[in-house]
Amino acid sequence: MKIGIFGTGVVGQSIAVKLLEIGQDVMVGTREVAKTLARTEPDSYGRPPISALLKQHLGLKIGTFADAARHGEILINATNGMGSLEVLNLAGESHLKGKILIDIANPLDFSKGMPPSLFVCNTDSLGEQIQRHYPAVKVVKTLNTVTAGLMVDPRRLAGGEHHIFVSGDDQDARAQVTHYLTTWFGWKHIIDLGDITSARATEMYLPIWLRLYGALGTGMFNIQVTM
Amino acid sequence: MKIGIFGTGVVGQSIAVKLLEIGQDVMVGTREVAKTLARTEPDSYGRPPISALLKQHLGLKIGTFADAARHGEILINATNGMGSLEVLNLAGESHLKGKILIDIANPLDFSKGMPPSLFVCNTDSLGEQIQRHYPAVKVVKTLNTVTAGLMVDPRRLAGGEHHIFVSGDDQDARAQVTHYLTTWFGWKHIIDLGDITSARATEMYLPIWLRLYGALGTGMFNIQVTM
Repeated sequence: MKIGIFGTGVVGQSIAVKLLEIGQDVMVGTREVAKTLARTEPDSYGRPPISALLKQHLGLKIGTFADAARHGEILINATNGMGSLEVLNLAGESHLKGKILIDIANPLDFSKGMPPSLFVCNTDSLGEQIQRHYPAVKVVKTLNTVTAGLMVDPRRLAGGEHHIFVSGDDQDARAQVTHYLTTWFGWKHIIDLGDITSARATEMYLPIWLRLYGALGTGMFNIQVTM
Repeated sequence: MKIGIFGTGVVGQSIAVKLLEIGQDVMVGTREVAKTLARTEPDSYGRPPISALLKQHLGLKIGTFADAARHGEILINATNGMGSLEVLNLAGESHLKGKILIDIANPLDFSKGMPPSLFVCNTDSLGEQIQRHYPAVKVVKTLNTVTAGLMVDPRRLAGGEHHIFVSGDDQDARAQVTHYLTTWFGWKHIIDLGDITSARATEMYLPIWLRLYGALGTGMFNIQVTM
């Protein structure tokens, strides 16, 4: 399947590598391809630049946001939440419409110090903002409640006995994404929270995720819903 | 131990009964004692009125908010979040100061339809509002992430293998409340999230709790933090 991923950070890279490994046709989109490829230094977390990834994974394609949007039958928003709407604008509505957009971005605002606050919450969400801007796109919010390493490999933790959530207005799109979460990444427990307004719930979960990260000293955790 | 509980709703009643059962000296506080006692009908959820509870539990005391505050060496805020600051004002600062206040209230705003939104969140919380209004009170936010039946009996679910959180500026108060959660109610897994600003995190967890309640069809669930 042709998949377009917006964003070349840790989330975009983790998902790209995993999808390549299972034989998908992946293009990552970035703002300026030449500038992204010119980076040869590790990022501030010590992660190798995307140019190193492209050498390791010869099948990986890179292009502009518009290229990636054109390429993908399914699209994945792995950008910084602050930039998501601008990135989708650069991708171009004509390349987005009718497609499923898996939205992983969180509306984190780091401008007011740590831990970050949310730039939209409570009566609205980033997922809803994207859906309102692009009504012909099938936005499905998911994976935004776990660290990148777990998104693509939930069985690294407790044999996969923990939960992930999907939110979106289109029921078939939610069902398709649920299927992809299982077949691509191995998610065993996926809870359908309903329409895209429920993206408020998973985005507002971020503050407790961040506090738990502080208390536990690792991001390699998730929640199991016990009933 | 003498304990004062503000609020005679399901949370206040559940905690009062449990504390009586383990031999504590409990007074519940209400706005108008005569009016509360005059209620003989079940509430809108079909729960018996507090007058029935007082007949079943002869040791249970009832008084005004000020009476309950005066009575308690430890205080518990089990009021509706919308009314919490007013209730504490009625209780009287002189009866509150120097004491631990276990704050269970959530800032739920039902005025804008269902599911409710929060009337304070993101860069502030109800826990912080209470702490700012009463700097001489040791506010510890906890138990606000589970339904009343689980607050006082976590072993009803998965043998107690799930988590609760404490937030508060006073480290000794957090440690004391952690001890009470274990000895009074049987909580096995308590995560210390740090200062009272972390009440934002557990209060902002409410939206996902409400969506899960909708998706699962029961409030008898909790999260286990898996790492």
